[in-house]
Amino acid sequence: MRVATRPSLLSLDDALAQLLASASSLGCTESVSTFDADGRMLAEDVVSELQVPAFDNSSMDGYAVRSSQASWTLPCRLRVPAGHSPSALPEGEAARIFTGAPIPFGADAVVMQEDCTDLGLVDGVPTIRINVVPAKAQWIRRAGEDVECGAVVLARGTRLSPAELGLAASVGMANLKVAAKPRVALFSTGDELVMPGSVAPADMKAGSIYNSNRYFLRALLVRMGCEVTDLGIVPDDLAATKQALSNAAAEHDLILTSGGVSVGEEDHIKPAVQALGELHLWQIAMKPGKPFAFGRVDKTHFVGLPGNPVSSLVTFLLLVRPLLLQMQDTSNMALQAMPPATLLRADFDVPRADKRREFLRVRRNVDGGLDLFPNQSSGVLTSAVWGDGLVDNAAGQTIQRGDMVSYLSFAEFLK
Amino acid sequence: MRVATRPSLLSLDDALAQLLASASSLGCTESVSTFDADGRMLAEDVVSELQVPAFDNSSMDGYAVRSSQASWTLPCRLRVPAGHSPSALPEGEAARIFTGAPIPFGADAVVMQEDCTDLGLVDGVPTIRINVVPAKAQWIRRAGEDVECGAVVLARGTRLSPAELGLAASVGMANLKVAAKPRVALFSTGDELVMPGSVAPADMKAGSIYNSNRYFLRALLVRMGCEVTDLGIVPDDLAATKQALSNAAAEHDLILTSGGVSVGEEDHIKPAVQALGELHLWQIAMKPGKPFAFGRVDKTHFVGLPGNPVSSLVTFLLLVRPLLLQMQDTSNMALQAMPPATLLRADFDVPRADKRREFLRVRRNVDGGLDLFPNQSSGVLTSAVWGDGLVDNAAGQTIQRGDMVSYLSFAEFLK
Repeated sequence: MRVATRPSLLSLDDALAQLLASASSLGCTESVSTFDADGRMLAEDVVSELQVPAFDNSSMDGYAVRSSQASWTLPCRLRVPAGHSPSALPEGEAARIFTGAPIPFGADAVVMQEDCTDLGLVDGVPTIRINVVPAKAQWIRRAGEDVECGAVVLARGTRLSPAELGLAASVGMANLKVAAKPRVALFSTGDELVMPGSVAPADMKAGSIYNSNRYFLRALLVRMGCEVTDLGIVPDDLAATKQALSNAAAEHDLILTSGGVSVGEEDHIKPAVQALGELHLWQIAMKPGKPFAFGRVDKTHFVGLPGNPVSSLVTFLLLVRPLLLQMQDTSNMALQAMPPATLLRADFDVPRADKRREFLRVRRNVDGGLDLFPNQSSGVLTSAVWGDGLVDNAAGQTIQRGDMVSYLSFAEFLK
Repeated sequence: MRVATRPSLLSLDDALAQLLASASSLGCTESVSTFDADGRMLAEDVVSELQVPAFDNSSMDGYAVRSSQASWTLPCRLRVPAGHSPSALPEGEAARIFTGAPIPFGADAVVMQEDCTDLGLVDGVPTIRINVVPAKAQWIRRAGEDVECGAVVLARGTRLSPAELGLAASVGMANLKVAAKPRVALFSTGDELVMPGSVAPADMKAGSIYNSNRYFLRALLVRMGCEVTDLGIVPDDLAATKQALSNAAAEHDLILTSGGVSVGEEDHIKPAVQALGELHLWQIAMKPGKPFAFGRVDKTHFVGLPGNPVSSLVTFLLLVRPLLLQMQDTSNMALQAMPPATLLRADFDVPRADKRREFLRVRRNVDGGLDLFPNQSSGVLTSAVWGDGLVDNAAGQTIQRGDMVSYLSFAEFLK
């Protein structure tokens, strides 16, 4: 009979290193419209075949002039709207110019219109007075100052957000080659789980709880650029579970479950995964989120998250998120597993140190410090809703009011 | 003839206040599956009709006991998996219990299995030795400690993210009432604009540039929960422009353009909007992003962003984003127009102060400070791709290396 012993705990960094070492880029790519590429990961460098700006142009509405002009009351017959190739600027004249319009040959400065007076027709000629003598090169954006021809404007492995789409479009890319979406099969496990809508709150039988993990896991997976198949509840016997996992493995890159991964819990997932591939049952020295299962079914990755909602959420952010990024990263660049932390002032105390590295749910206050959610229980999803981030607190570390602590914003994980 | 004068600049705060004062919640709501509600805004409070946890339960795999037990070698015949209603714990016994399972009547503590030794059968009875005497209430999550019955778990006006979906599901909500998606018509304006894909970089004629704004604006609008109609380029004459705007207004809540809003620029949008509704041409004391047009066509909001890509991006984040949030906010709560700023160390100098409030593109470095993108030109979209946020620098303010400055993360705007 099995004698339960206290297993040695794995550090989060070691767990992450093992996780990422066993996984690699899926290697599949597809071409998508730049319009549809938000959140995807670039599978090849975007190289500019042109310079941006393509030509010297005005960054203001105003008048193009020679900065060496002697007199500043000037005929203004030339008019340069954006999108037009101007003729040269005649000696001793100004040209009306608009933002983005090419600088006419001969001009070397732009005076913004607020610094000019339109004198109307003088001797039958439209005339302008320049009230502020311009510096050479003033209000001119130089050709190529944004992007040089041949420059890599976006590197393979870049996760695309709106600004990246704009930059790709600015060098003429109507389509982008991106990593294929990881296909993720989501299973739920746990006899106690009831789907919202299937039983009214008043009719919930004792011992039952609503399945909340499936909701946030699906939303997180979609945000990470995945295609999610919700396979519902794990079947109630081993043979059927093996069959279901095997079927899922054939069509997916990752099988994700939550619950059922504690050492002592009995479910059919563990023996089924062990029979079909391999399974590591880790005890990670982190709080929340100690039990964590990682393995594979055939060649498909398998991850079993803890069942407590906050543990499930936090282990997703700290472990599954980097795994999914790596699966989409064809660049083999060093992966930034965690978003950058910010040092902020703790406006709370943690008088008792935990043996595990702890991720406390906190919220920035109006004074620029951090408040702590009073109930840090891993079953309490309200802490993650109330909070706007996590404090990454080292094992054995107490916190005193006023200490600078390492803050990780949820927004950085979710972007 | 019009005499150009330097118009007085509007402060960003005043512009935002005027913008939000002229707009209000659209008031339309719809019910969506909780699975599909990520990024949407709640249109009614979510009130819990149950307590979470619904019952006292174990937060560990282990053994449920009486903490007042005299002897710590105990028969263990009762077994409580999650999802089952247990019978009472017999006096002087322990019960095998798993994470999430209800605490049997009589037990008042859980000992985690790592602190126990399974002795197997002793005199024919399964027996366990407890190695660490438990404190009362240890590893028990109390009924209602997360959510009390009748509590508002999510307030009307909350923007939903994955954790909120999980919390809503945990109180049994299969569907959520959310604000209808704002319907946004996106127009482009500018003779110089060419759509990527329509002309190869090598064939671009002088004066032409690729339309990049449409790409990031569409992606930003989608992230803000909008339904976007891309109406392409504004027609080339006034009557057709009026017709197009009128048609768009009938079916949309906001008409958004970029370019063509500088004081001196000529396009058909301005007179068309003026004829059909009203138009304010603001000069905002901010950099990038001075020219900004706001008005309405019939009852539909109209916003004209500056044409320079960075100006367009920054004014979207600082002005259009709050407008879109307000249009979806049925709670009339005080709106947080800007995400919370963080004070971080500038690892750069800005020796010359600007007359306008400036939003500098910066990036956090590994030392926890901020680096400045060298080219802060508003035409240079690379600054927003290279950067991970903005420094909000007051008008007339220089920055010296080591100064603490107000940092706004792009991730907080985009979440």
